[in-house]
Amino acid sequence: MRQVSTSASALSALTGGVLTGEFRRVHGVEAVEHAGPEDLACYEKGEPGRAGVLLAKAAIEGRTVIVVPDPLAALCMVLDHFLPEPGFVTAVHPTAKIDPTAILDPGVVIGADCEVGPGTHLFPNVVLYARTRIGAHCRIHAGSVIGADGFRYHATPTGPLKVPQVGGVVVGDDVEIGANCTIDRGFLTNTTLGAGCKLDNMVHVGHNCTLGSYVIIAAQTGVSGSSRIGDGVLIGGQVGIADHTVIGPGARIGAQSGLHGTIPAGETWLGTPALPISVMRRVYAITRDLPAMWAGWKR
Amino acid sequence: MRQVSTSASALSALTGGVLTGEFRRVHGVEAVEHAGPEDLACYEKGEPGRAGVLLAKAAIEGRTVIVVPDPLAALCMVLDHFLPEPGFVTAVHPTAKIDPTAILDPGVVIGADCEVGPGTHLFPNVVLYARTRIGAHCRIHAGSVIGADGFRYHATPTGPLKVPQVGGVVVGDDVEIGANCTIDRGFLTNTTLGAGCKLDNMVHVGHNCTLGSYVIIAAQTGVSGSSRIGDGVLIGGQVGIADHTVIGPGARIGAQSGLHGTIPAGETWLGTPALPISVMRRVYAITRDLPAMWAGWKR
Amino acid sequence: MRQVSTSASALSALTGGVLTGEFRRVHGVEAVEHAGPEDLACYEKGEPGRAGVLLAKAAIEGRTVIVVPDPLAALCMVLDHFLPEPGFVTAVHPTAKIDPTAILDPGVVIGADCEVGPGTHLFPNVVLYARTRIGAHCRIHAGSVIGADGFRYHATPTGPLKVPQVGGVVVGDDVEIGANCTIDRGFLTNTTLGAGCKLDNMVHVGHNCTLGSYVIIAAQTGVSGSSRIGDGVLIGGQVGIADHTVIGPGARIGAQSGLHGTIPAGETWLGTPALPISVMRRVYAITRDLPAMWAGWKR
Repeated sequence: MRQVSTSASALSALTGGVLTGEFRRVHGVEAVEHAGPEDLACYEKGEPGRAGVLLAKAAIEGRTVIVVPDPLAALCMVLDHFLPEPGFVTAVHPTAKIDPTAILDPGVVIGADCEVGPGTHLFPNVVLYARTRIGAHCRIHAGSVIGADGFRYHATPTGPLKVPQVGGVVVGDDVEIGANCTIDRGFLTNTTLGAGCKLDNMVHVGHNCTLGSYVIIAAQTGVSGSSRIGDGVLIGGQVGIADHTVIGPGARIGAQSGLHGTIPAGETWLGTPALPISVMRRVYAITRDLPAMWAGWKR
Repeated sequence: MRQVSTSASALSALTGGVLTGEFRRVHGVEAVEHAGPEDLACYEKGEPGRAGVLLAKAAIEGRTVIVVPDPLAALCMVLDHFLPEPGFVTAVHPTAKIDPTAILDPGVVIGADCEVGPGTHLFPNVVLYARTRIGAHCRIHAGSVIGADGFRYHATPTGPLKVPQVGGVVVGDDVEIGANCTIDRGFLTNTTLGAGCKLDNMVHVGHNCTLGSYVIIAAQTGVSGSSRIGDGVLIGGQVGIADHTVIGPGARIGAQSGLHGTIPAGETWLGTPALPISVMRRVYAITRDLPAMWAGWKR
Repeated sequence: MRQVSTSASALSALTGGVLTGEFRRVHGVEAVEHAGPEDLACYEKGEPGRAGVLLAKAAIEGRTVIVVPDPLAALCMVLDHFLPEPGFVTAVHPTAKIDPTAILDPGVVIGADCEVGPGTHLFPNVVLYARTRIGAHCRIHAGSVIGADGFRYHATPTGPLKVPQVGGVVVGDDVEIGANCTIDRGFLTNTTLGAGCKLDNMVHVGHNCTLGSYVIIAAQTGVSGSSRIGDGVLIGGQVGIADHTVIGPGARIGAQSGLHGTIPAGETWLGTPALPISVMRRVYAITRDLPAMWAGWKR
């Protein structure tokens, strides 16, 4: 149980909801299935459990309910208000243009010509290579490396020649990047992430990629160089995206898929190589039958 | 050759074995195929090579053998005794409850309300976010990040709303976590790893997951949020586990598999989507024949 | 546009090319499709765009061209000359044998008995565990961990027994390792990377692996323990290589493949489990047709 100490009426005022049922005090916030009589919980469907106070879309007979249009959004407000994230000790690096409201945790290293916008939080051991620009109100989690060299070698008779990577990385506002991610800088121009992008842990984005706004990428996905990902695209975990892939706005990509070429806007694709999800689901459904078919066909 | 200087009889005493064959001194420990007359080696099967002294299950004519029931376990004792791991310089962070016998290497950052148990070693640049509890005798390798935000956004008309992650991470005793892993903290409750879990490098565990005791996970595997993994489960490398997956105790999962739903206790599954290994091995075996079958069927 | 200020004739002298067309000054370097009248660009095929000066293999009517045998190699020379990489502040760790010409960035941690060769650059937060030897002119990017424990446990009646890892890692000259990689140390002997190897971000190499010279590995690939990879092998992204795999010199492995056993020298393999690329491409081509074949066959 997370400790808070407040009342149902105060929570109702905070969330802009309508309090129904009897007055109750609240001492914790819990998942609805674990909550007890002193807890607040968010109720969306199924069993309403034993929580003393519920955030829900409608009143429930015999229960104390704060009626709100979006219970989870209301719970987020409560958590942000009562349980702010504890900070690490801050160590500001003197050579970069850091907005005074940005938070730089210990172990953060920032190279030349970088910029970090207002309200942005760089968690411990984040590294920004030279020429990285991070917008406002971003969160970059521990161990992520932004702006390392793109991966390109030029084959010559005397072995691979490193192609210098002299571009940068530009990250828009309200972007969250998980722990231990890598976003490489561009070759001559920039690698760019649009406003509101959300990357889970261990996501890799190669050089010269362009991500639109509100692109959401789950853990351990890799985006190879020069790919372009449209606004609002959703990408599952462990997806591999070949270089120069183009994904149209609003497309969705299932976990562990492998992509190349062009994915049309708004479509959902799955598998390696990826196909429209309706096709690939049928392939997945009959995979276990293939050996029997082969045995029968050979006869 | 790793330098030691001892004798076959001292090694016999150390390992509790029975010395057979002539007395010999030992100056190194080597793999059996590389060992020479001054080396100790562990012999299990195949060629016994040229090692001066062998740890083996039975005496060998004309050779100096320390007979032990488990030669590799005996070798581990020798290595631990003669070749203790050299330490890094330690830098203890003053604001966390750290057992005085724990080792914190340089670059380690520990947030508020964390606990680290006796004998635990946090290697360089490990980060513990607030509310992370690490048990006794754990080893967490360099660059791993424990307790970063779980990955959850709530879709609203004005874009994705971040769902605050206010739970913690609880890691049991005798857990080893490899380098550059990420274990996210829970949403309201905790993400938990049971005693004796062993994670290889770059393993990702999402928020609210529960791993039982002695779960072993190979490199680059990702476990999505709220999954439950039973005691003694073995998971290969680069496996992807969807959110809310349940894996029964003692199950085994082959490398590069993709899982969702429920995997029964004690079974071995493989592939994407995963199937029982006997089924998937038959699919793998006929994959190369599918184009010929298709060509024949079309006619 | 990257700022430089020079002339076509100076660039011709720098690159050893032959200047054709009228004299022009140059103020930037750009991709050929974005370059304007004051920019230098590298032209290889397609549209020559509007760049004021081109590096190309042959003269072009009405344009200022520096004729060189390898335009991209010439561009690399220009970039290295005019846009050297800005350094981080250096913090040398006192207890290791570091060549005085090596660069160690902030947050680098180096264990006992390590060696770092001349001209090598360790970027921020790189960790070298004890007994790691890095050759000359290497670049190891931020967050990479070299020499952590190999992943091996010995099953005993009382649970998994950790097998101590007392070998090291030996990295040859001119090796580049991307950000957030992990290279584990060997069990008794060493894990070795030959000269000129190039690893992208988040690559994992397990204990006792041997990589030959000029092995190139794309992002998020994992190489399990004791694998041997021959000279000049090219491996795509997100590939999984089982333990004890042997890949012959000059072989190529497609992205997201899963390998085990032996891959012959010079061949190109693809898929999970991997097959020769010509076979697997035919399988990929008919994957979408399998459900129809199954439906027809059942009738």
